[in-house]
This record gives sequence, C-alpha cells and structure tokens, in this order.
Amino acid sequence: MSIYDEVLAANGAYVEGFGDKGSLALPPARGFAILTCMDARLDPAKYAGLSEGDAHVIRNAGGRATDDAIRSLVISHKLLGTRTWFVIHHTNCGMELFSDGVIADLLEDDLETARFDGKTWTNPHHHGGHSAGQFIKWHTISGQELSVLHDVKHIREHPLVPGYIPIFGFIYDVRTGRLNEVEEASEAGRPTA
Amino acid sequence: MSIYDEVLAANGAYVEGFGDKGSLALPPARGFAILTCMDARLDPAKYAGLSEGDAHVIRNAGGRATDDAIRSLVISHKLLGTRTWFVIHHTNCGMELFSDGVIADLLEDDLETARFDGKTWTNPHHHGGHSAGQFIKWHTISGQELSVLHDVKHIREHPLVPGYIPIFGFIYDVRTGRLNEVEEASEAGRPTA
Repeated sequence: MSIYDEVLAANGAYVEGFGDKGSLALPPARGFAILTCMDARLDPAKYAGLSEGDAHVIRNAGGRATDDAIRSLVISHKLLGTRTWFVIHHTNCGMELFSDGVIADLLEDDLETARFDGKTWTNPHHHGGHSAGQFIKWHTISGQELSVLHDVKHIREHPLVPGYIPIFGFIYDVRTGRLNEVEEASEAGRPTA
Repeated sequence: MSIYDEVLAANGAYVEGFGDKGSLALPPARGFAILTCMDARLDPAKYAGLSEGDAHVIRNAGGRATDDAIRSLVISHKLLGTRTWFVIHHTNCGMELFSDGVIADLLEDDLETARFDGKTWTNPHHHGGHSAGQFIKWHTISGQELSVLHDVKHIREHPLVPGYIPIFGFIYDVRTGRLNEVEEASEAGRPTA
C-alpha cells in the first residue's frame, strides 16, 4: 500500500469516529500555543495533553523562532487570543548534526540542486555560480539549552510580541518523553508588562 | 490549575506510558512529511494516522509554503530521507478572515505594537513612523483551493526541491475530519523527474 493510500485509509477511520468535533470553535479553547520541532518522534498533542481544539501547534525544523514562526505566534495571539506560549526543542535533534556549511555543500554536490549565477537560477547541470543552499539560513543548533534560550529571548524582544505573554522554554527528551524546563529560558520569557 | 501546570501534569502521564518509544530512530520511519496549519482543531497525527516516529509534521499559520516551511521540507528530504510530501490546508481557516491590510491596521492601533521610524524601532507610545505589522507578509488566504494549488506549485518549482518527490494537495474539512484532495494541486505536484 502506498503512503498516499495509507494516509487516506487512516483518515477514513478518523472520520468514522469524528463524533461532535465538527462543532469546535476556531480560537484555541485553552488559549495557548506551542512552537516545537517537526521531528517525527514528537507528538505535541500527546506529550502536552492536547485534544482537538485546545491549542495552536507551530512546527518547523528545530522548533526555531524563525520569522515565520513569529508570524504564526503573532496571529495566534492578536487574532485568536492565545496568551501563553511554549518553545519546545528536543534531545537528539537532527539540526545539531550539521552546519549551514555542510548542508550548503551537500546541496552543491547534488545534481538535483539548481545554481545561481548572480542573476538567475540555472540548470543544475551547468557549472559555475553558487549553490542555492548558500542563500538560506538553515537555523542549525549548536546546543539545545542555548537554542531554547536564544529563541525565547528572540520572541520576547520582537517588536510585535506583547510583553504580557509568558514564554516558557523546554527540552523534550526523546528517550523518556519528558519535558525538561530550561529555567534560564523561561526566566528570559517572563512577562515584562 | 494554570496552563503551565496542566501541560506538565499531562506530560507526566505521557512519560508513565512511554514504553519503548525511546528507541525510535531519528529519520521518519514511513518516509513522508506533512505541511499543515497550526489550527487547534487539526491533529495531523490523528487525521492522517501517524504514530510517533512515522513522519515529519511542519505547521504554521495557514499551512503555507513559506521560505521557512521549504527550509524544513528540504532538510526533511536531504538529511532525513522523506520522499513524499503533503500540503494540507483546511476549511474555516483563520487566515481567510483577514487581509494583510487588516492585521497591519490592527497592530497599528495597538499600543503594544512598536513603530519603525525608518531607522529603528521606537516606543509604541511615540507617534509617527510605520507599524511593524506593515513589514511582514502575513500569507493570508483568499480561497482554499487556490492557496493549496499555489503552495504545491511554489514548492514544486523551488530550486532546492528535487523533481522526483510527489507533492499532494488536500483540504481538511473541520466539520467532518475528512481530507479532500485538490486534484489540480496534486496534478501540479506530480514528479517531473
């Protein structure tokens, strides 16, 4: 069975047991948001006890406080009323295993990767120019506690983020399922207003 | 009980029943990734049948193919081997309810919002300058099918995305839990190599 068929079969079973969830309201019932990693081993609904309708969940590679994650958090608060945020990175994250240089080189070596000659993208089989990978900030992680602290601070200091929102920092342990707080980060995420 | 205490209590129960999930491998066991919305009513693990370890899940406001979502998808494939991607937007999305202009004005009217005088952020209580909200592309949605089609195409055409990865486009119905395919989008997401 293909992934496509498996997903649709699983969805069919979910629809069968959907019950009265069709009447859930748009704004998160429990008024909070989680920013966490896309890692396959993490299930935020399970590790944080969320039912459908409870909370916003934002995920990207690393659970990083990128501009896009902050866009989502600002919408989460300003339009949909969340007032508590969690930043949750995790142990054994793939983002610790490489650097921006490594992935740029990896993409550069790959015939599937386009090149940029300073003006335009060119066919990957052409020579010269720079790899597309050089133009992206990959948001790799050099230390888990450091990245949580950095990201909480970055959100706290963002001009569109109100000071009254508490931001907590955690590391999820993939061996045990436990959320361990990064106290320095939660301290940096304390409300300022 | 505060949200903080509730999350930690739920996590404690999850740890109790964690079983042998501590031995799951880093790369997604089923080799695929889902890009979907942060909406609280969506639980991708449930609606698509994912267990811990199965698949990458990327989420932002709207489930949009932003630069950050593409960063995550490229890492998902190049470093962790996923080879099938799904873009899943949904009915009754908050991103359809406002425009870039509306949220910029909303932020402008808000004393919690900083202002930018062309050189630097200033205290929100100062007058003049432009609202920080004007500088962000909010990725609002004017039509669900259109946004899925746009995003699948945008990923398909991205220079760092290999042509051999199929990209499927769906809309999740929040009233029924059902995934409905946007056939034109999946067609646009067909492998080209």
